[in-house]
Amino acid sequence: MGFEIDDEFIAKQNRKLEAELETDYAHLGEVLRRRGIDIEEVTKRAQAFRVALPSWGVGTGGTRFARFPGPGEPRDIYDKLEDCATIFKLVRVTPSVSLHIPWDKADDLRALREFASSRGLSFDAMNSNTFQDQPDQRLSYKFGSLTHPDRAVREQAIAHNIECIEIGRALGSRALTVWIGDGGNFPGQIDFRRALERYLESMGEIYAALPDDWRLFIEYKLYEPAFYSTVINDWGTAYYCACRLGEKAFCLVDLGHHAPNSNVEMIVARLVQFGKLGGFHFNDSKYGDDDLDAGSIKPFQLFLIFNELVAAELEGASGFDPSYMIDESHNVTDPIESLMMSAMEIVRAYVQATLVEREALREAQDACDAIAALATLKRAFNTDVTPILAMARRRAGGAIDPIAVYRASNYRQRKAEERPVSKGTFAGIV
Amino acid sequence: MGFEIDDEFIAKQNRKLEAELETDYAHLGEVLRRRGIDIEEVTKRAQAFRVALPSWGVGTGGTRFARFPGPGEPRDIYDKLEDCATIFKLVRVTPSVSLHIPWDKADDLRALREFASSRGLSFDAMNSNTFQDQPDQRLSYKFGSLTHPDRAVREQAIAHNIECIEIGRALGSRALTVWIGDGGNFPGQIDFRRALERYLESMGEIYAALPDDWRLFIEYKLYEPAFYSTVINDWGTAYYCACRLGEKAFCLVDLGHHAPNSNVEMIVARLVQFGKLGGFHFNDSKYGDDDLDAGSIKPFQLFLIFNELVAAELEGASGFDPSYMIDESHNVTDPIESLMMSAMEIVRAYVQATLVEREALREAQDACDAIAALATLKRAFNTDVTPILAMARRRAGGAIDPIAVYRASNYRQRKAEERPVSKGTFAGIV
Amino acid sequence: MGFEIDDEFIAKQNRKLEAELETDYAHLGEVLRRRGIDIEEVTKRAQAFRVALPSWGVGTGGTRFARFPGPGEPRDIYDKLEDCATIFKLVRVTPSVSLHIPWDKADDLRALREFASSRGLSFDAMNSNTFQDQPDQRLSYKFGSLTHPDRAVREQAIAHNIECIEIGRALGSRALTVWIGDGGNFPGQIDFRRALERYLESMGEIYAALPDDWRLFIEYKLYEPAFYSTVINDWGTAYYCACRLGEKAFCLVDLGHHAPNSNVEMIVARLVQFGKLGGFHFNDSKYGDDDLDAGSIKPFQLFLIFNELVAAELEGASGFDPSYMIDESHNVTDPIESLMMSAMEIVRAYVQATLVEREALREAQDACDAIAALATLKRAFNTDVTPILAMARRRAGGAIDPIAVYRASNYRQRKAEERPVSKGTFAGIV
Amino acid sequence: MGFEIDDEFIAKQNRKLEAELETDYAHLGEVLRRRGIDIEEVTKRAQAFRVALPSWGVGTGGTRFARFPGPGEPRDIYDKLEDCATIFKLVRVTPSVSLHIPWDKADDLRALREFASSRGLSFDAMNSNTFQDQPDQRLSYKFGSLTHPDRAVREQAIAHNIECIEIGRALGSRALTVWIGDGGNFPGQIDFRRALERYLESMGEIYAALPDDWRLFIEYKLYEPAFYSTVINDWGTAYYCACRLGEKAFCLVDLGHHAPNSNVEMIVARLVQFGKLGGFHFNDSKYGDDDLDAGSIKPFQLFLIFNELVAAELEGASGFDPSYMIDESHNVTDPIESLMMSAMEIVRAYVQATLVEREALREAQDACDAIAALATLKRAFNTDVTPILAMARRRAGGAIDPIAVYRASNYRQRKAEERPVSKGTFAGIV
Repeated sequence: MGFEIDDEFIAKQNRKLEAELETDYAHLGEVLRRRGIDIEEVTKRAQAFRVALPSWGVGTGGTRFARFPGPGEPRDIYDKLEDCATIFKLVRVTPSVSLHIPWDKADDLRALREFASSRGLSFDAMNSNTFQDQPDQRLSYKFGSLTHPDRAVREQAIAHNIECIEIGRALGSRALTVWIGDGGNFPGQIDFRRALERYLESMGEIYAALPDDWRLFIEYKLYEPAFYSTVINDWGTAYYCACRLGEKAFCLVDLGHHAPNSNVEMIVARLVQFGKLGGFHFNDSKYGDDDLDAGSIKPFQLFLIFNELVAAELEGASGFDPSYMIDESHNVTDPIESLMMSAMEIVRAYVQATLVEREALREAQDACDAIAALATLKRAFNTDVTPILAMARRRAGGAIDPIAVYRASNYRQRKAEERPVSKGTFAGIV
Repeated sequence: MGFEIDDEFIAKQNRKLEAELETDYAHLGEVLRRRGIDIEEVTKRAQAFRVALPSWGVGTGGTRFARFPGPGEPRDIYDKLEDCATIFKLVRVTPSVSLHIPWDKADDLRALREFASSRGLSFDAMNSNTFQDQPDQRLSYKFGSLTHPDRAVREQAIAHNIECIEIGRALGSRALTVWIGDGGNFPGQIDFRRALERYLESMGEIYAALPDDWRLFIEYKLYEPAFYSTVINDWGTAYYCACRLGEKAFCLVDLGHHAPNSNVEMIVARLVQFGKLGGFHFNDSKYGDDDLDAGSIKPFQLFLIFNELVAAELEGASGFDPSYMIDESHNVTDPIESLMMSAMEIVRAYVQATLVEREALREAQDACDAIAALATLKRAFNTDVTPILAMARRRAGGAIDPIAVYRASNYRQRKAEERPVSKGTFAGIV
Repeated sequence: MGFEIDDEFIAKQNRKLEAELETDYAHLGEVLRRRGIDIEEVTKRAQAFRVALPSWGVGTGGTRFARFPGPGEPRDIYDKLEDCATIFKLVRVTPSVSLHIPWDKADDLRALREFASSRGLSFDAMNSNTFQDQPDQRLSYKFGSLTHPDRAVREQAIAHNIECIEIGRALGSRALTVWIGDGGNFPGQIDFRRALERYLESMGEIYAALPDDWRLFIEYKLYEPAFYSTVINDWGTAYYCACRLGEKAFCLVDLGHHAPNSNVEMIVARLVQFGKLGGFHFNDSKYGDDDLDAGSIKPFQLFLIFNELVAAELEGASGFDPSYMIDESHNVTDPIESLMMSAMEIVRAYVQATLVEREALREAQDACDAIAALATLKRAFNTDVTPILAMARRRAGGAIDPIAVYRASNYRQRKAEERPVSKGTFAGIV
Repeated sequence: MGFEIDDEFIAKQNRKLEAELETDYAHLGEVLRRRGIDIEEVTKRAQAFRVALPSWGVGTGGTRFARFPGPGEPRDIYDKLEDCATIFKLVRVTPSVSLHIPWDKADDLRALREFASSRGLSFDAMNSNTFQDQPDQRLSYKFGSLTHPDRAVREQAIAHNIECIEIGRALGSRALTVWIGDGGNFPGQIDFRRALERYLESMGEIYAALPDDWRLFIEYKLYEPAFYSTVINDWGTAYYCACRLGEKAFCLVDLGHHAPNSNVEMIVARLVQFGKLGGFHFNDSKYGDDDLDAGSIKPFQLFLIFNELVAAELEGASGFDPSYMIDESHNVTDPIESLMMSAMEIVRAYVQATLVEREALREAQDACDAIAALATLKRAFNTDVTPILAMARRRAGGAIDPIAVYRASNYRQRKAEERPVSKGTFAGIV
């Protein structure tokens, strides 16, 4: 049994900060009361918020140039779940983990499920992988998978996705996320229309294998690994495919998968309005699919996205039930720290969006009063909700300052000892 | 009756270049024969190609900083048609003109139609204008038109669009293009979902007024004049709206209306595949909606777009009947010269795309042979089809070298004399 | 004598908010004390901060499609100064105004200077205008000004700039900002190298006319009004020119003048490091040179820019003395409100940057601890410094809530009555 | 001794195409004669043109998601030189190879040099590698190399660069290209100014070790592998550093290393004008540093770049002596085919640029005649110069159709037999 951070350690660390937290929380409560907001309601919402962890996120990521692993990298899905459990213990909003097959394959799924549930963890969406070749794979995905011109390759990819569903059923998952790297590097390489027809045909077979209570998430991406054209390249294409496939099919928004200057919060609003928003891969980016920590580059954009999500939630928008997940590549940080920071920033944006005075906003919109509308959003965004986030964590048994507790625990050093480096250890990247 | 370039003048200018043209055409015929292509079939296609002129394109355009008018600017729709007729006479592929209301309003529509038809001109899609306020306008479009929060403003905008349809019926037009500037400059200003609902409601009323044999084109644009959010901002939104409105509604692609790095030819393929490609506003751009001359910045992209269009045409793709138009802002050139160059570059791309050896391309695609696929496209693109374009023009009575003939005719100087400058002359920009 | 908001009115409005402000300020003081920061020092800095107003910013801006003026638009430089004085009175950080010639020409400069100084206003950098033709202008700038192929046009543009210096001397200005629209819309139109040589030659003559205690600011911009190439297009070009011209020449950064995805804060750091940062045109943007209100789109970027500026200030970086100015286009808001919001957001970013714990940051950087470095910046950015900003304003005689006081004063309605609309009123845009 | 394509085989393949080539060449000669251009002069220039091959380019590239190797991958520098020799034999413009250390390290440099020169190959610029960790490396480059906060890491990186110079001297190279991945993924991670100071200090030591007849190329890149800030991120920074280092230091332009929408041909003109253009890494891209085949995405941009280069060459611009190299990542093609296609497209652009009628261009520029200027460039670009390229190759002993000859030779299959796959074979990517 490996090292774990125990509750007592957390509680002890918390005690140093509690007095200050109470003071700050009380003052913030007063500030919000002036706006007609009950801080306790907000804190309850913060406690109820959930965002899933990606199993591959606890490993160090890399670029095409290099990967620089850190100490104590997880060696298999059990190690990964251990790290996820640590994150969950400290930040309290991440009780579920999203698996990537075949990276996370396990011989005994029942044992895996028990290992997870004994740590309070469950399984979020399953992720298939047809953008890499595996050692034992019969046919190559070099030129595509679900859209490959060769039917045999497509069938292999379909079978893999169906296997992911089966594994997911055994683990209690309820969704399959399909992201494919299919596309072309040169004009002419791919026939745009025939490739999309093949995609719809392949996805139709996967969709047919989906249990009734599952959802299918179509993840679009502008480019990379294909550098000229990508089959599922934008929300419009994903939306069309989701409509064609049926009511269990939805679009998945990864924040880094858009063209420069795109208004992502408006895309989110579109998918809400059209009833096809499946969920999110949260991260941040400055250039392309940089997979940086959520909120690290464009925190106001993250807030504006949650402004749309909270509005839809409060209105009870039809069919609105998005699945939130983190998907990042931690190349220069301790992945556990990055995931904790990201989870906290995501809750921050959610809580800030909760503070938006919606009646005032609507009045400003109806009066074409752009200054008042912006000021209403900014009042919420500028509010430092750190005390709410910390109070929500503490009340749920987590850490007031998760990074500090984690560092004080020496978790990473302990894992470095427990997990001797074996050649070829690689956590995978999406 | 104003100055016109007469056929004899064109014929005389052509005679200087005929011998060379025959030689070049013969050699190109031989080159194409080796590829199994009959040059005469290609030339026939070049002669049959059509692209409409925008009435406002014959005036000098401008930016928000300044407009620098040139000599002989058209003063009204009659002057504009005169300039369009001159273009048509020389390049022979532009027999129709697209009007913009209220800029092109005329008291006597029958007289206007006769003025046009006596010059061989007909009327393409009508364009409404709710992005500016007109002197006599009751309510302002400052904060929107078809999506304005105030129903009275929406009704005014709807009525204007219906008036455009009525004018178009009198002139023999068969389509209405709707582009609105509606959007917001700041987060919060516009409720994304409610604005789109209002759009659909307003457009529904316009659609209901559409004659049976008309089509409705929805023009999307990423930004400008709104700089944070635009209601009809991308092809996905336009596609959704076209589906909601009905089978007479289609999407219109303006090449400059996309995010940086977008693969426009793939968007074209999508709309072809989904049966909702209405037409094009051709132009070129480097940064935003720069409205530069077609083919001046990214000629290979223009070719790749036509590669999709020609493929759809040859396959007889269901519902494929795109309407081609030029839409540019000529700020530093003689607008007539720019429109002639643009029309010729558009035919060039069309003819190059016609030369693509489609069987070889398909074989390369099926064999995942990216090099052969690219080489097949490049063989067509690298072919200098100038002799085909010139021969097509000459056979149709046009000029072998339209720019040279135009300059030799002194048309611009003559118009400068005929059209004395009056204060406030302004051709308008889209 | 026109309507003014008087000090008593401001004081009365302030009284409603003072108790809450004191509470919030006290609590923030406690929070900062824990970090070792004395709130009074920070508030002093907030009070000392200065950012100039653009005379043209108090008029409604527009796009190439339309301008929708509002009520009470300023009619001349005196009206503009009146509006600037109102802004200054309420926000207290904008005591100087930047003029644009010939828009702001006045017959009696001494009277103008007195009019300004009686309202506490002085004159910031002068701005020349060679991107428009003026009614009485001999030669056109259609094809360029300081870089025009025709020497006579260049001489006219040089003379205009020298006239701007002379006007500025009379008004007490100490800097000239030169932004030119020169560039090309098509490949081939401009010879890149010869155009830059002509620029250097022309600017050399202007530089020679610069008083000893003046500075020359070179403003670069990627594109618009030229849409293919711009002569002074990026910081590298501006830097080269500033070096060539001499030690009084510096680069001016307008936040909206960069390519998509550019790291603007790093450009700022470069110019600081190379001793050539002259100043800023603050605004915000999502797509191009959108000229939106500062901080409205990317507030974290604004903070990161100030993080560089405050670091340079605290270190006493050699030659560091940047000139801060707002430059925006207010198309859908009351310009006075937008300028007040912008000024406040700029001080907000400055104050947040002041809160960065620089020793902790440096330690994190030296330890390659990216998480700690980011967390240090975020701790400052997430702090709601609104009480500091409000306290600084109140102590300086300004408004705790400037927008509310402005609206309550009915200033705009009063000006609408005082300034009857005359045809052709236009405030100009940059 | 491995399989080689022999001259007789090439000659035999050529004979099938010679008659057609002669016809096409003769007709093109006539067309050019009308423009006052002697085709023989152009063909001579095409024969004299040189572009270097990257040793790593003959291996299959990959992305961060996967690498899909092909058959017959080169296993070491000798295999790579064999492939380069094959390319050179067929296209005749690539007699030199650029090495990457430590990937291309060899025990016996004299033997390596002889192996190369016996195949007509020489060695172009040396490339150091401090963006990856090597198995035997003492200190990690995870957080930087030449700019790392830790002096020991910087010293290791400096020593590696000096070793590259020493290897290069033994091989007859005359230049060192330095590209570093140093930068940060998060705001705050890197102190922009201190990092650049460390860069200059480190590079100063490398510069000091440079032989007198060598040049140092500074390669800039906007982003990747760092996704927030990059130390040497743009041409302006590279230019500043080159000036600081001395007259042997120059800037290297990789076409894919710029922000979206950048005018790369203008950057080239700037570096020519400022005397600091060192050379090129040719490739093409649509999104980021996609490393696609030269001319495959934006052939007109490639032409416009060569338009600047040919102009500088013809004018004898001071210090103009650029080093041309290909740098691509061949992920889905046979790398040998991609490199041949790329080399041919680069010569195509060079030859097209040679056809620009420079006097007509200058006249158009001086007359502000944008249409004539663009038409002059387009006349050259639209010319199908394939016969000149083919004739130049044939006259130099190469193939009229290199791809066809290569495929007919079964070179790849032969190498697949000769080079059995060993685990871990990896050619490396830049």
